[in-house]
Amino acid sequence: MSEARPLVGIDIGGTRLKLALIDQAGTKQARVVARRTHALRPADRTPAALVSRLRRAVNELASAESGAIQGAGIGVPGVLDADAGRVCHSPNLPWLDDFILGPALSRALGLPVYVDNDVNCIAWGEASAGVGHGVPDQLCLALGTGVGGGIVLGSRLYRGGRGRGAELGHICVDPRGPPCGCGGRGCLEQYASQTGLLRLMGAFGLLDRPEAGSPDDIPRLFHVAAAGHPTAEQAVAVAGTAMGHAIASLLQVFDVPLVVISGGIADALPSLRPALLRAMTRQGPAGVTGRVRIVAGTLGPDAGCIGAAALHRASVRT
Amino acid sequence: MSEARPLVGIDIGGTRLKLALIDQAGTKQARVVARRTHALRPADRTPAALVSRLRRAVNELASAESGAIQGAGIGVPGVLDADAGRVCHSPNLPWLDDFILGPALSRALGLPVYVDNDVNCIAWGEASAGVGHGVPDQLCLALGTGVGGGIVLGSRLYRGGRGRGAELGHICVDPRGPPCGCGGRGCLEQYASQTGLLRLMGAFGLLDRPEAGSPDDIPRLFHVAAAGHPTAEQAVAVAGTAMGHAIASLLQVFDVPLVVISGGIADALPSLRPALLRAMTRQGPAGVTGRVRIVAGTLGPDAGCIGAAALHRASVRT
Repeated sequence: MSEARPLVGIDIGGTRLKLALIDQAGTKQARVVARRTHALRPADRTPAALVSRLRRAVNELASAESGAIQGAGIGVPGVLDADAGRVCHSPNLPWLDDFILGPALSRALGLPVYVDNDVNCIAWGEASAGVGHGVPDQLCLALGTGVGGGIVLGSRLYRGGRGRGAELGHICVDPRGPPCGCGGRGCLEQYASQTGLLRLMGAFGLLDRPEAGSPDDIPRLFHVAAAGHPTAEQAVAVAGTAMGHAIASLLQVFDVPLVVISGGIADALPSLRPALLRAMTRQGPAGVTGRVRIVAGTLGPDAGCIGAAALHRASVRT
Repeated sequence: MSEARPLVGIDIGGTRLKLALIDQAGTKQARVVARRTHALRPADRTPAALVSRLRRAVNELASAESGAIQGAGIGVPGVLDADAGRVCHSPNLPWLDDFILGPALSRALGLPVYVDNDVNCIAWGEASAGVGHGVPDQLCLALGTGVGGGIVLGSRLYRGGRGRGAELGHICVDPRGPPCGCGGRGCLEQYASQTGLLRLMGAFGLLDRPEAGSPDDIPRLFHVAAAGHPTAEQAVAVAGTAMGHAIASLLQVFDVPLVVISGGIADALPSLRPALLRAMTRQGPAGVTGRVRIVAGTLGPDAGCIGAAALHRASVRT
């Protein structure tokens, strides 16, 4: 039954490659049958070296399991041209800019390869096989190093008119807020990403050395806030309020019934939720905010690989 | 040639009914062959009285011209269920709430009738026959008493997941800004609508009696600003900046190549543009803001009627 051959989902990050072998990709029953994480070494950081590394990693994963695979889907941070399989612009992996990754890896593997933006993959993973299954219209916020966004409308991924939309992390929540890497001020990313939370911890005096905070410090923020530390509570409330304001503006635009929170900080949603809901209810459209669900994704760190494989299947089907 | 029979486009406002007989509705060649404006009198303000008034007005317009018409399209302010022809909720015309206007007028006229949100009609008018013709993805901001929004994606009107989206006037541009009628703070509408501009004129001491400004005062604001009055220039810059911030956030979401400004205040776009572009460029996505056109609609006050007729034609066709 060739239909049943698994797909490989790949999530390329700034410092590591994640691969997962996905059974029943593109369906609610999708599941990870094996996964591998490889460090992205300096020697891997050319287009040719990456393709070679991915080829070996895919073949090793496939041969350790069932053997035959049907193809691969890849999520890459940045602006992608999914039709051409091209990386247009990746701020975190600038050595991939303008590289036509999909066809290159396809030739190396002898299999079809689909490439898309990493947060589109996460959003599609949750929409097809996670908490968003069966909901035609939904948004996804992926809270990681930055804040990424995914938009699903009418059961299809919306990529922005020319592929650069859905940058929901750069919605401005305060024009007088802190400067953002994008050149703007007060973007959601400055509050609700690892970077943003560390900035808030520094501003609220919650880091021993404000300039040297690391993502490992962030669980402590939520831990001490939960224990009632007033300054930590304030910092968490600022982050939750920013999320609530951004989601309120998004609901004015979209009126979706579901917003999925994914990424490493999604686990902290219970701590962020009270301030988030207060701000969203105050600022959002009255008839809408009462009916929207703001929930953590259920696929956790597998969402990107599951979604990449599902997008591969959808792209082959259409 | 029955195909060539004209359609009636109707724009229902808070205080008046506008009707226009539209030739070649739904095409780039659409043109108004006759128009009428009627005051909406207190006696008209029941569902049955409105239908009767509209029936007489449509028949009068049709008989004064060619005679035979093909149907009517209507724009109504508020939340509409276009499929059912129902007015779900109209803050300005609350006596229409829950009224199934489309079928009722259709029975009265003996002709098919299509009903949609008024700003959707304006956006579709400009997209089908105005400045946005041929651009598959575009946004529309209608600056009038309030600020309305329209979203065209892939050459189709996007209505929000459940019909309440596209409320672009309630995107928050400053969470510490003035309270808005929607319950939020610092919505775009508080800066770039008639209401918002009068509020700014009051705040900047540009009204003799701040509590008694009227829409007729607004041209004076732009006139004295153009003449170099520093306080008026500041007030206009605040409004333009708010528009720039809102458009920047929208471009993060949508990456469209065109934003159409319509409504009574669209004429003042040249005055608003410098501050708008500064704020949009600072806050928006770098690769996008350089390529987006922010332009006034070319259909002026006819956009709503032309769009209502075009949506009628599109709804009959599909």
